[in-house]
Amino acid sequence: MPMNITVLGAGMIGRTIAKELAKTHKVKAVDRDQRSLNELAGIKNLETVKTNLTSLAVYKKLLQGQDICVSAVPGFMGYEALSNIIQTGTDCVDISFAPENALELNILAKKHKVAVIVDCGVAPGMSNIILGYENSQMQVESFSCVVGGLPKVRTAPFEYKAPFSPIDVIEEYSRPARLVENSSLVTKPALSERELLHFKEVGSLESFNTDGLRSLLFTMQHIPNMKEKTLRYPGHVALIQSLQQAGFFSEEKIMVDGSAISRKDFTCKILFDQWKLMPEDEEFTLMNIRIDGNIDGRKITKTYHLFDEYDRDSRTSSMSRTTAFTCTSIVELLAKGKLKEKGVFAPETIGGMDGNFEAIISYLKDRNVIYTVS
Amino acid sequence: MPMNITVLGAGMIGRTIAKELAKTHKVKAVDRDQRSLNELAGIKNLETVKTNLTSLAVYKKLLQGQDICVSAVPGFMGYEALSNIIQTGTDCVDISFAPENALELNILAKKHKVAVIVDCGVAPGMSNIILGYENSQMQVESFSCVVGGLPKVRTAPFEYKAPFSPIDVIEEYSRPARLVENSSLVTKPALSERELLHFKEVGSLESFNTDGLRSLLFTMQHIPNMKEKTLRYPGHVALIQSLQQAGFFSEEKIMVDGSAISRKDFTCKILFDQWKLMPEDEEFTLMNIRIDGNIDGRKITKTYHLFDEYDRDSRTSSMSRTTAFTCTSIVELLAKGKLKEKGVFAPETIGGMDGNFEAIISYLKDRNVIYTVS
Repeated sequence: MPMNITVLGAGMIGRTIAKELAKTHKVKAVDRDQRSLNELAGIKNLETVKTNLTSLAVYKKLLQGQDICVSAVPGFMGYEALSNIIQTGTDCVDISFAPENALELNILAKKHKVAVIVDCGVAPGMSNIILGYENSQMQVESFSCVVGGLPKVRTAPFEYKAPFSPIDVIEEYSRPARLVENSSLVTKPALSERELLHFKEVGSLESFNTDGLRSLLFTMQHIPNMKEKTLRYPGHVALIQSLQQAGFFSEEKIMVDGSAISRKDFTCKILFDQWKLMPEDEEFTLMNIRIDGNIDGRKITKTYHLFDEYDRDSRTSSMSRTTAFTCTSIVELLAKGKLKEKGVFAPETIGGMDGNFEAIISYLKDRNVIYTVS
Repeated sequence: MPMNITVLGAGMIGRTIAKELAKTHKVKAVDRDQRSLNELAGIKNLETVKTNLTSLAVYKKLLQGQDICVSAVPGFMGYEALSNIIQTGTDCVDISFAPENALELNILAKKHKVAVIVDCGVAPGMSNIILGYENSQMQVESFSCVVGGLPKVRTAPFEYKAPFSPIDVIEEYSRPARLVENSSLVTKPALSERELLHFKEVGSLESFNTDGLRSLLFTMQHIPNMKEKTLRYPGHVALIQSLQQAGFFSEEKIMVDGSAISRKDFTCKILFDQWKLMPEDEEFTLMNIRIDGNIDGRKITKTYHLFDEYDRDSRTSSMSRTTAFTCTSIVELLAKGKLKEKGVFAPETIGGMDGNFEAIISYLKDRNVIYTVS
């Protein structure tokens, strides 16, 4: 049954979500930037609204009579947006990846009788859903995920491009990584434990620790070993570390031409030019998950592999497709009434519920986002 | 016979020159910075003068009654200083390494009946003297010089420190290198033709093209092959090239925190902290010269090798000793009346004149700067 769905944020991912949902639902896309909304002009069942999400009153007006809200706003405003959406009493699927722990809004969500699913991207997102599912099937002993989105054309010196701000990437490269080893929470330096991995699709990539486990650190405390590593082309990390060592990422200000300038701000300005992923830049998403465990004492190893490429026909990046379709697959679970409980849920919780995993994998396969299991 | 000698510039090298000359001559050290002059306080036969070298009148007053002037001023003011010194009628030994071609002052020097020897350091300097000497002994077919000054402690990521401004080093890394191949003047990119070389004293170093031949390009046009390469610890150049490729050295201004900032100025500010050679930092100078040629058809290969280290007793850097003593050795040639001709001379011209080479090598050996010949 078609639903009334509002998508907050019409950036690269938000637009892909809105377009996909408009194929079966009545969609309202909201952004403060008219140019982003213009790219959604003329699509059937899709209305655009230009507004600034400044207060609860704005949310209440926007979400009046809406069945589901998708929050695809920038991370820095994600937590506040979620709090407001919950207070309007609208179910929500969130891919803002706010730095705060959204699970803390659980009580508020229960109070307003809404279901919220956060972190519905690839990783976090599908990686959580897969672990949630396997955790419901076996006793998991270790979870290892390597994941990265990279441009097909390798341009020196960084061989990296991304659709998000270099500041967010630098933040990811700076924050210590939390992982679980032998049932202990361990903190290791960002970029540590570099190792080369080999993939038939793209050759050798370098993996290194990043702080990507997020909700899994709290929801999967019974699993003795969990780690997430990020993938880049070999050499990228060494160059980043050199810049770090030389002080290019420090917050400290220095005087240049009579102005006090933040080293990090300056460096990010230069990296912005270098790292900007243009709409025509072909890229791919690669994720490889290994889960070891046992069923009744019998050892089991499952691997999940995703290699997804830029779609030339729709001119859509792999990152926006793999992220957006994971999100919309969960919107469909909500729309079909598969999620009856109220509260804020991490994706692993959804993946552990009967039937959801198969539905999501099948939904993604229909959209040519294919997870290979072995 | 003791001479009256004025040393203009009391930086690291100028001070070492003044101290050395004061052992046998009456020396006047001149600088605009009292702190630099304070380090020369209490030395016998050494007077200090604080003044700004603003006009020909200042030079005339300073050099009245002086026999020889050493110009150790910063490069940017080297050419103008030399022009003024010549007009006072004082013989001069120059180590300012001005970017301009000082040989163009030859006519002025002849008119004022003074002898000027420029570029009297290690390279340019001793490298030219050695080639000038060998050129007077054989028919030279090729000249190859690798040279570098490096800190003993290798600190990541650059493993480099220098007593001069990073701006000058970046300039050296940016200017295309002129060399001579098969009797043709060839221009290659700076930092090109990297190759690993191995030295028993310090292990493997990386050599690469820099524009260091200077006067040799004009005075030694009959030699079919000449090149000069700079030495750094392996990895330094790759990192510099990465920064170059990413735009960190561009002159272009970018807006940061509301100010238009030159990328190069910003980067040099950061490098200044990284590259600053402190007085206690032990360093070394390494130069290796290979000259191939023939005497009456008989093939000859000569190699000259210098490995000179920081002197712990006098707490003097190798760079200041090797540079300053080359300069003072030529001052002594002037003082002893060995240079009768007038005009502006490159060091290779001095090295080619009868007896000078042996005198210089012997002078340096007495001061523990030892060139090994084979």
